[in-house]
Amino acid sequence: MARIVMKFGGTSVADPDRIRKVAALVQDEAAEGNEVAVVVSAMSGETNRLVAYVDELSADSDIGGAIDDEYDTIVASGEQVTSGLLAIALRRRGVKARSWQGWQIPLQTDGAHSSARIKGIETLAFADSISKGTVGVVAGFQGISPDGRVSTLGRGGSDTSAVALAVALNADRCDIYTDVDGVYTTDPRIVPEARRLNRIAFEEMLELASQGAKVLQTRSVELAMNNNLPIRVLTSFADEGQENPGTLVCAEDETMEERVVSGVAYSRDEAQISLLGLKDKPGVVAQVCGVMSEADVIVDMIVQGISQTENSANLVFTVGERDVKKALAALDTAKQDIGFEDVVVNEKVTKVSVVGIGMRSHTGVAHTMFSALAERGINIEVIATSEIKISVLIDAEYTELAVRALHGAFELEASRG
Amino acid sequence: MARIVMKFGGTSVADPDRIRKVAALVQDEAAEGNEVAVVVSAMSGETNRLVAYVDELSADSDIGGAIDDEYDTIVASGEQVTSGLLAIALRRRGVKARSWQGWQIPLQTDGAHSSARIKGIETLAFADSISKGTVGVVAGFQGISPDGRVSTLGRGGSDTSAVALAVALNADRCDIYTDVDGVYTTDPRIVPEARRLNRIAFEEMLELASQGAKVLQTRSVELAMNNNLPIRVLTSFADEGQENPGTLVCAEDETMEERVVSGVAYSRDEAQISLLGLKDKPGVVAQVCGVMSEADVIVDMIVQGISQTENSANLVFTVGERDVKKALAALDTAKQDIGFEDVVVNEKVTKVSVVGIGMRSHTGVAHTMFSALAERGINIEVIATSEIKISVLIDAEYTELAVRALHGAFELEASRG
Repeated sequence: MARIVMKFGGTSVADPDRIRKVAALVQDEAAEGNEVAVVVSAMSGETNRLVAYVDELSADSDIGGAIDDEYDTIVASGEQVTSGLLAIALRRRGVKARSWQGWQIPLQTDGAHSSARIKGIETLAFADSISKGTVGVVAGFQGISPDGRVSTLGRGGSDTSAVALAVALNADRCDIYTDVDGVYTTDPRIVPEARRLNRIAFEEMLELASQGAKVLQTRSVELAMNNNLPIRVLTSFADEGQENPGTLVCAEDETMEERVVSGVAYSRDEAQISLLGLKDKPGVVAQVCGVMSEADVIVDMIVQGISQTENSANLVFTVGERDVKKALAALDTAKQDIGFEDVVVNEKVTKVSVVGIGMRSHTGVAHTMFSALAERGINIEVIATSEIKISVLIDAEYTELAVRALHGAFELEASRG
Repeated sequence: MARIVMKFGGTSVADPDRIRKVAALVQDEAAEGNEVAVVVSAMSGETNRLVAYVDELSADSDIGGAIDDEYDTIVASGEQVTSGLLAIALRRRGVKARSWQGWQIPLQTDGAHSSARIKGIETLAFADSISKGTVGVVAGFQGISPDGRVSTLGRGGSDTSAVALAVALNADRCDIYTDVDGVYTTDPRIVPEARRLNRIAFEEMLELASQGAKVLQTRSVELAMNNNLPIRVLTSFADEGQENPGTLVCAEDETMEERVVSGVAYSRDEAQISLLGLKDKPGVVAQVCGVMSEADVIVDMIVQGISQTENSANLVFTVGERDVKKALAALDTAKQDIGFEDVVVNEKVTKVSVVGIGMRSHTGVAHTMFSALAERGINIEVIATSEIKISVLIDAEYTELAVRALHGAFELEASRG
């Protein structure tokens, strides 16, 4: 007997028929005598439908300020519905089950509505219930704020709900069911030879997730890593009897270290902002970063170059595409203070990254990467590196070409690990 | 300054545009310095959409028993969404507002999921919030059960939420906004001359509601009557500046007593069940009623007739159309005990009722009613009376004819009251 957390995303519970299939998977685990907690997302499309209502009404004017608390109340209803429906589907298969909302467990968060962070999970009543053989079906993505309102964890937050619940329950396993059968070396839509990885290290998954691979939410991987909780990513769409090993995301081991690169990720949601004619004074990078931070804009890659003109430099950095408006407004306000002449925005850029813990012990990764891109005439705008990742910003037109080139250059199609 | 409860039904909040109009109505009340609580239903169509999901999954098998607790969790999400959306619409008009779910107030109910009764409303935090000028937008229809689950009050329960909240808050007014501009002498779709009543007594409204007039839920009228809380029924579809007096439902006064009849109601959701060849033994009516009660079937009209055959009688009674299957199953089980030969069901019947507190002091109402029907050749199957109501069961084909005949016979088109 084990204690298991299973998580199902929106496409896995898209309609009553899919919910029945999920119920069958849960029943299999319960039938083996396991204590089972299930975390569900909203039926796919539901969250977007609800967000569209919110957007329509909130666009009426700027009066009244923040509405994130009401956004949370509205959008969390999607998970509420799925949790009830799956509980019914389970009962109809003879499995004892009940739904749990975030406020019922309770899953306590801070008060940062629409992107709340989990503060604690009171598992006493919940653990008691599942230990008596009742499957606990938990509405993901949601919690309760310090003032007793519904809070949500941000898009993709159900992954985080599942991992946090698994940690709090001291679960033996946390299985994240999705619509792909594991974590791939890269996007198979671009590289058909992309391979499913059997195992991947937390750190690698974290880099892949934050570099654009959408299979797991970044915060859920952080949480799993910090608590050394292995996560298995697998598909809920497997046929009965079909093998479904998925990918185990876990602490690094020796086999992983033998791989130089584990995956190639890309993100099109990038915008490159160039400040031209910048007065070359000390601390200007820190100043720009400070302005962006105050505007709640995350700066990702950043590089400073010397311009031809004397005493003048350029500063190039990237932000998320959705933050461009905010970033430009903040720069405009601070133009005098920072002291630049012009600002140029390019949204037609893609960030391509290679990730692998093997980089720590293997040399020549950068050389291989840059050569592969240069051979295909792909210009690199900005470079950013970490211990286990090299990212380059390139013209968006070259995205597929670059991803294929790098996948081939690091021989990721070969059957290892 | 007054304390006001406003309630808006599903058609009044059917889409973002309707929600904006409701926000304007609420703003008008708040702008006058009133303390305002608003109770909202789900957007029209939402509840049916959610119930369809529940029905589909729950029909899979009979295993697992009751699902009413999960039904409540699922269906209550409809009101949750509306409450958040209206709060946003209000803020965008510069009105301070926040949503309240049943569990947040909390509105405590018993544990009879899907048809829970209100046990109490803790108004401390809520009243504090609205007294500080924040409009409280309450998700109607829902509460919290003794074990901390979401409960619902049954279809139409938002009326009851509104009245119960108004009573608990000791409100000065309770305005029920709907898609008609008040309570009519009868259904204007059948009788174009039907008139809106300016005032109607609680008792009359109660009879009209339980006899098929759908403008207010029966339990909400009971609750208002027991607490002598006047309810105003009015439309949310009035143009700006248009008069919208509605109908005041309140304690009876002298002008009301002058009316012999206040309204004509009809209900097509009736089924007539006849037990034939019944052994004429004492207590058989009580026995049949007991069998129905155990099967959770409400018996409405009931009449016993002597059959031609010696020592044998017929018993005729009516039940709601949706209860026919349950009723027949219960009768089948108890056939030996009760001792009847055959059972005949007729679902093509309508109950037509005339209602008025004036009946207490005016004679001849029954005579006028039966004459009007007889003149048009309409047969009466069963009769039931109360102090302020006479109901007849007739062939459904004659419904419109009977309603028109009675509306004319009691001169309800004349401009009184």
